[in-house]
Amino acid sequence: MSASVFDHPWLGGLFGDPEMAEIWSAERQMAHMLAFEAAWSRALGACGRVDAEIAEAAAAAIAAARIDLGDIRAGMAQDGVPVPRLVKQLQAIVGPEAVAAVHKGATSQDVVDSALVLTLKETTGLLAFRITELESALIDLDARQGEAPLMGRTRMQAATEITVSDRLRPWHQPLAAHLERLAEIARHVERVQVGGASGDRKALGADAQEITDQVAESLGLASTGSAWHAKRDAVAEYAGLLSLITGTLGKIGQDICLMAQQGLDEIKLSGGGGSSAMPHKQNPVGAELLVTLARFNAVQLSGMHQALIHEQERSGAAWALEWMLLPQMAQATARALSTAQGLVGNIARIGAPG
Amino acid sequence: MSASVFDHPWLGGLFGDPEMAEIWSAERQMAHMLAFEAAWSRALGACGRVDAEIAEAAAAAIAAARIDLGDIRAGMAQDGVPVPRLVKQLQAIVGPEAVAAVHKGATSQDVVDSALVLTLKETTGLLAFRITELESALIDLDARQGEAPLMGRTRMQAATEITVSDRLRPWHQPLAAHLERLAEIARHVERVQVGGASGDRKALGADAQEITDQVAESLGLASTGSAWHAKRDAVAEYAGLLSLITGTLGKIGQDICLMAQQGLDEIKLSGGGGSSAMPHKQNPVGAELLVTLARFNAVQLSGMHQALIHEQERSGAAWALEWMLLPQMAQATARALSTAQGLVGNIARIGAPG
Amino acid sequence: MSASVFDHPWLGGLFGDPEMAEIWSAERQMAHMLAFEAAWSRALGACGRVDAEIAEAAAAAIAAARIDLGDIRAGMAQDGVPVPRLVKQLQAIVGPEAVAAVHKGATSQDVVDSALVLTLKETTGLLAFRITELESALIDLDARQGEAPLMGRTRMQAATEITVSDRLRPWHQPLAAHLERLAEIARHVERVQVGGASGDRKALGADAQEITDQVAESLGLASTGSAWHAKRDAVAEYAGLLSLITGTLGKIGQDICLMAQQGLDEIKLSGGGGSSAMPHKQNPVGAELLVTLARFNAVQLSGMHQALIHEQERSGAAWALEWMLLPQMAQATARALSTAQGLVGNIARIGAPG
Amino acid sequence: MSASVFDHPWLGGLFGDPEMAEIWSAERQMAHMLAFEAAWSRALGACGRVDAEIAEAAAAAIAAARIDLGDIRAGMAQDGVPVPRLVKQLQAIVGPEAVAAVHKGATSQDVVDSALVLTLKETTGLLAFRITELESALIDLDARQGEAPLMGRTRMQAATEITVSDRLRPWHQPLAAHLERLAEIARHVERVQVGGASGDRKALGADAQEITDQVAESLGLASTGSAWHAKRDAVAEYAGLLSLITGTLGKIGQDICLMAQQGLDEIKLSGGGGSSAMPHKQNPVGAELLVTLARFNAVQLSGMHQALIHEQERSGAAWALEWMLLPQMAQATARALSTAQGLVGNIARIGAPG
Repeated sequence: MSASVFDHPWLGGLFGDPEMAEIWSAERQMAHMLAFEAAWSRALGACGRVDAEIAEAAAAAIAAARIDLGDIRAGMAQDGVPVPRLVKQLQAIVGPEAVAAVHKGATSQDVVDSALVLTLKETTGLLAFRITELESALIDLDARQGEAPLMGRTRMQAATEITVSDRLRPWHQPLAAHLERLAEIARHVERVQVGGASGDRKALGADAQEITDQVAESLGLASTGSAWHAKRDAVAEYAGLLSLITGTLGKIGQDICLMAQQGLDEIKLSGGGGSSAMPHKQNPVGAELLVTLARFNAVQLSGMHQALIHEQERSGAAWALEWMLLPQMAQATARALSTAQGLVGNIARIGAPG
Repeated sequence: MSASVFDHPWLGGLFGDPEMAEIWSAERQMAHMLAFEAAWSRALGACGRVDAEIAEAAAAAIAAARIDLGDIRAGMAQDGVPVPRLVKQLQAIVGPEAVAAVHKGATSQDVVDSALVLTLKETTGLLAFRITELESALIDLDARQGEAPLMGRTRMQAATEITVSDRLRPWHQPLAAHLERLAEIARHVERVQVGGASGDRKALGADAQEITDQVAESLGLASTGSAWHAKRDAVAEYAGLLSLITGTLGKIGQDICLMAQQGLDEIKLSGGGGSSAMPHKQNPVGAELLVTLARFNAVQLSGMHQALIHEQERSGAAWALEWMLLPQMAQATARALSTAQGLVGNIARIGAPG
Repeated sequence: MSASVFDHPWLGGLFGDPEMAEIWSAERQMAHMLAFEAAWSRALGACGRVDAEIAEAAAAAIAAARIDLGDIRAGMAQDGVPVPRLVKQLQAIVGPEAVAAVHKGATSQDVVDSALVLTLKETTGLLAFRITELESALIDLDARQGEAPLMGRTRMQAATEITVSDRLRPWHQPLAAHLERLAEIARHVERVQVGGASGDRKALGADAQEITDQVAESLGLASTGSAWHAKRDAVAEYAGLLSLITGTLGKIGQDICLMAQQGLDEIKLSGGGGSSAMPHKQNPVGAELLVTLARFNAVQLSGMHQALIHEQERSGAAWALEWMLLPQMAQATARALSTAQGLVGNIARIGAPG
Repeated sequence: MSASVFDHPWLGGLFGDPEMAEIWSAERQMAHMLAFEAAWSRALGACGRVDAEIAEAAAAAIAAARIDLGDIRAGMAQDGVPVPRLVKQLQAIVGPEAVAAVHKGATSQDVVDSALVLTLKETTGLLAFRITELESALIDLDARQGEAPLMGRTRMQAATEITVSDRLRPWHQPLAAHLERLAEIARHVERVQVGGASGDRKALGADAQEITDQVAESLGLASTGSAWHAKRDAVAEYAGLLSLITGTLGKIGQDICLMAQQGLDEIKLSGGGGSSAMPHKQNPVGAELLVTLARFNAVQLSGMHQALIHEQERSGAAWALEWMLLPQMAQATARALSTAQGLVGNIARIGAPG
C-alpha cells in the first residue's frame, strides 16, 4: 500500500482527488505514450519513409497493444526511462516486417514529454472547469451574504468594519486571472515534442517537419519548429500556475480558519470534522487542508525551478526531478479546488455574528 | 494506479525501495496505531483506571483487530485524522463493557505521532544498516583502487593530479558522521507521544506519568514528562538528516556523472542504462538518480521546516504538511542508499584512463 | 559593512549589479513613496476633498521633502511599516493647515505596494532591455559559429553529433518567450494599490474611484476598481518569471561549465578567473555564477509562494516575507543577465575542438 | 543604499541585528582571513619550510595589513574568490624576501572556509547566549503567570481548558534541545580547513599535518586529518539548526498573533506597533516578525541542502550559493532571538481575559 497521501488507503480520503488521479494515472500515461507511437508510425507512413499500409497496420497494433508493465518496470530500473523496453515490446507486437515503422527517428524524450503534454492538456481542462465553478460559487455567496458586516482585520488585529463582500473579493478575483493564465500557458505547453536522438531531428532528414506536423495533428497538439525538451520553461511555468492557484485557495483556507475561531465566530460551517477526544468539536478540516496544499505546492515549485538547469541535450537528473514533483502538484491543485468548492457550499453563515 | 514515483507501476522500478516502502506502508502504520491503542488499554488496566482483565482482553482484541479501511478513509475526509473512526471500530470490537478501556484519555495526535515514531525507529534501523554497508563498500573500493592517479578538478577545471583516494574521501567520510547523527537524533525522536485532548494529560489525572511510562515501555520508546506533539523540532531535525544523507550521495552521483563523460573516462561502470535511439550508449542512470534524489530531499526539507510553525496545541495544517513530505523523504533516502551501493558495486575501474 | 552578497564590499564585485541595485535602492523606494503621497495629495485636491491650492502646495512640499531616515528606521522597528512615521514627517513639513491634504484615506499598504509596483516597472524595463540584448548576442553567435560540429550529449554521455546551432537553440529561444511573459505580467503588476484602512476605500466615499484613477495616472500605472493588496498572485507570478529567466541562464551556465572541461574543450572563453594556488587555471567563473543565481532564485521563489497565504485584509507576516525575497531575486536576475552577456562576448570559439 | 532588509536604512530597523551584523561584517570576515594567513605563515616557519624569523615578520605584517578592498572586489569579479588578489596584496606587503612565507601550499578554500568557521564560532556564541536568556525569560514568565487558565486550542478551535504553563512548554522546551544541538554541531563545524590546490595537501609534503595542527591551534579551531571543503554536511547541518531555532520562535510568534486577536484577548502586549490609518491599533509586529523569519529560514535551508551537491574537489557554483544564504540565515536567527526576548518582556498579561 502506498505511502503517498494521494493514493494512501485512508489518507487518500482527505488528500485524494479521483478525477485528477485518473488523469495522471499510469494507465493514461501509457495510453498517451501509445498514442504518440501510433501517431509516429502513421506519420512515417504518410511521408513515405515506410510503406503506408505497413505503417497503418503498425499504428493500429500499437494503439491496441497490451503492454507488459513488469517488463517496462524492469527496463526503467536499467535505462532510467520506460521507452527502450516499450519500443522492444511494440516491435515484437508489430512483427519483424514492420519494425521500421516503430519509433524510428524518435527518442525517449519525444515519447515521454509529448505524453506529459497530453496529460497537462487534460489537467488544464479539469482545472479550468473547477476554477470556473468555484468562482461562480463565490460570486453567488457574495450575492447572498456580501452585505453582511464583518470586522476588517489587518496584521491579525481588528481594524475597521468592512463587509463580507470586501473579504470575498480577494478570494474570487484571482480566479478570473488564473483562468486567463491557464489559457495563456496552455499555448506554451500544448506542443508536441519531437527531437530524435540528440534533439536535432537529423534522423528524419527532409521529412522532419512533416512528421512533426502530422504527429502534432494526430495528438491534438501544436506543432513545433524544433525540439523543446531541453527548454523546460513552459513546464516550470505551468507548475508556477498550479502553485498560484493553490496559493489563492490557501488564503481562503487561512481566512476561514481564522473566522471559525470561537470568540470570533465570523463563519458558520456545516460538516466540520470531529475529534477522537472531543466529540463536540467542529474542526474546519477543509480550510486547514487548503493551507496545507498551498504550502505543499509552494515547496514543490522550488524543485521544478531547480530542474530548469537541464544540461546539454537531455538531463536525466533534472528531468527525473520533474517526475517526482509535477504529478503531485497537479493532484494537490485539483484537491484544493474540490475542497474549496465543498467548503463554500458548507458556509451556512458568513459575517459578524448576529 | 499511482502517480507517485515510489509506487508507480514502472517508475517504481527506478525510484521504489521495497524495504523502505514496507516500513512506511499503510499496513505497518495501522499496525503501529493498533500497537499504541493496545498498549494504552493495558496501561489503563495496569494503573487501575479500568479493570485489568477487561483491559487485557481489550488490548488483545485491539492487537488482533481487522480494521475496515474504507470506513477509516471516509472518516479521514471528515475529521482530517483517522483516529475518531478507528476508535469507533475498536469500541465496537471490544464490546460495550470494555469501551472505557479504549483510547480513554488519549487523542488523535498521541496515536498518530507515536505510530510515526515507531516508523522512524524502523527507518533509522534500515538506514543505519545501509550506511554502514555503503561505507564499507567505499572503503573497500579505496583499498583496491585508491592509489590510482586522477586529475583533481576544481571549479570543473583540471587542477593538479590527485589520487582516487582523495576523490573518495568526501564520498565516505560523511557517512560515519551520518551514523553518529542518526544515533544522536534517535534519542530525540524515539519518544512516546502522550498528551490527551489539549496536550496537558489532564484527563489522566494522577496516573498520567505511569500510563505514559507503560505505553512507552510496551512500544520500545522512551517515556516523556510532557507531550511533544506541538514541538516538531525533532521531526524536522530527522528530515534534515535524511537530506544530509542524500546530499552526500548526490555529490557522489554528480562526481560519477562527471567522471563517466566520454573524453574524460575516469570511471568505468558496468550495467549502465540504454537509450531507445542509441543502443550503444551506457547511461549512468544510478548516478543521475542520486543527484535527483538529493535535490528532491533538499526541496522537501523546506516544507518540513515550514511545518515547525505548529500553532497552539495542535495545528491541522502544519501537521498534515509533514504527512505529505516525510514519507517521501524516507523513501528517497533509502533508494539513494541502495542505488549508491549498486553503483559502487558496478565500478569496474576508477581513476585516470590507462 | 553588508553581509549581503549584492552589497558586500568585495563579494559585490561578483554578485552586484549596479543598475538593478539603483532601481531597488532605498533612495528610489523613498522617491516612489513620496511620489505616491504627492499624487495622493493632488488627487484629494482635484476631487475637492481639500482645497486644491493647499493640496498642490502639499504635493510640491512632499515631492521635495527631505526625509529623516533615522526616524523612519525607528518607526519601522515599532510599527513594522515605514509609513506612520513618514506621514508624521510629511505632516510636519506641509504644516498644520495642510495636514488634511496628506495621506488622508490612504494606508501603509497603499504607499508601500504602489511604490513596489513602480520599482517593478523599472525592473521590467531593465530586464527587457537586457534580455533583448542577450538574445541578439546569442543569435549573432549562432550566425557566426552555429555550423560548427559538436558532440550532442544526453544524460551526460556522448550521443550523436549535432551542430553548435542545436546547442544554442535552447539557450536563446526561451528568451523570446520571456520577453512575451514580461509584457504580459507587466499588465498584471503595474497597477496602483489603493485601499485605505481595511482595503475597502470607505474613507474616500464617493471619490474613491476618482482618486484612484488620478493617483494611477500621476504614477504612470493602471487604475484598479478595488484594492489588490491582499491578492498577491501578480507579485508571486512576477517572482516566478524572474526565476524562469535565471533558470534559462542557469542552463546556459551549466552547459558552458561542462563544455569548458579539459578533455572536452568544446568552448574557449577569454577572461576566465584565476586561482590562488594554480595561476595557470582559467576558471569559468561567470558560467558557474549563472548556475548559482538560478538555484538561488529557485529557492527564493518557494518563499514568494508561501507568502500567497496572506491572511485577512493585510498580513504583516506574509507581506514582510516578500520584502526579504523579491529584491534579491530581482538583483540576481539582473546580474545573471549581465553575466550571460559578458560570457557570450567572451566566447572565442564554440564547438568540437579542431 | 542596500536592498537587503538586514542592512536597509529603514527596514533594517525591523530586521537588522547589530551584534550579528558585526559578526558577519566584511571587516570581521577580512580579519578572519588575515588571521588564517598569519597563522599559515607562522606554521610555515615553525615547521622549517621558511625561515622562522621571516615567517614571523610576515605573519606580523599580515596581521596588521591594510587591505585595498576595491582591488579585492575587482579580483572577485574576475576570479570568483577574493583570495588571489588578497595574496598578491600580502606578498607586496611582506616584500620579495618573504613571498615564500605567504599562503604557500594553501588555496582559496582554505582561507575562505576557515574564516567561515571562525564566523560560525562567534555566531554560535551569540546564539547560545541569547537562547539561554530567552529560555530564562520564558521560565520566569511561566513561574509568574503559568497557573493562569487558558483555552486550549487544537486545529484552531477551542478544545479544553489548559493553563498558560501548558501553552508555554512548547515555547521553551525546544530551546534547551537547541542549546544541546549547538554544542554538538559546534564539534562538527569548528575545524580548520586545510587542503591546498586540489585538497590533498600534497604541496605541504611531510609537514602537512604539523602545519594543519598549528594553524588550527592559532585559530582556536580543531585540527583535521584531511580537507573537509568538499564535504559540506556540517555547514548544511548548521543551517538546519538555525532554521530549527527560528522555527521554534515562529511557533511562539504565531501563537502570540493568535492570542492577541480582539475577541480572544489572551495576551496583553505593551509596545505594539501603530498604523498610519488607525492610530488606535496595537499591532503585534514582533510576533509577526517571528513568523516571517521562520518561514524565511525554512526557505533558505533548501538552498543550503542543494549546495551539498558540491562536485569534485571544489564546486564554484555550489559554494557561492552558500555565501548567498548562510549569512542571511544567521542574521535572521539572531534577530528572531532578540525579537522573542523583547516580546516576552512586553507580555503584560497572558491567559484567558479576566
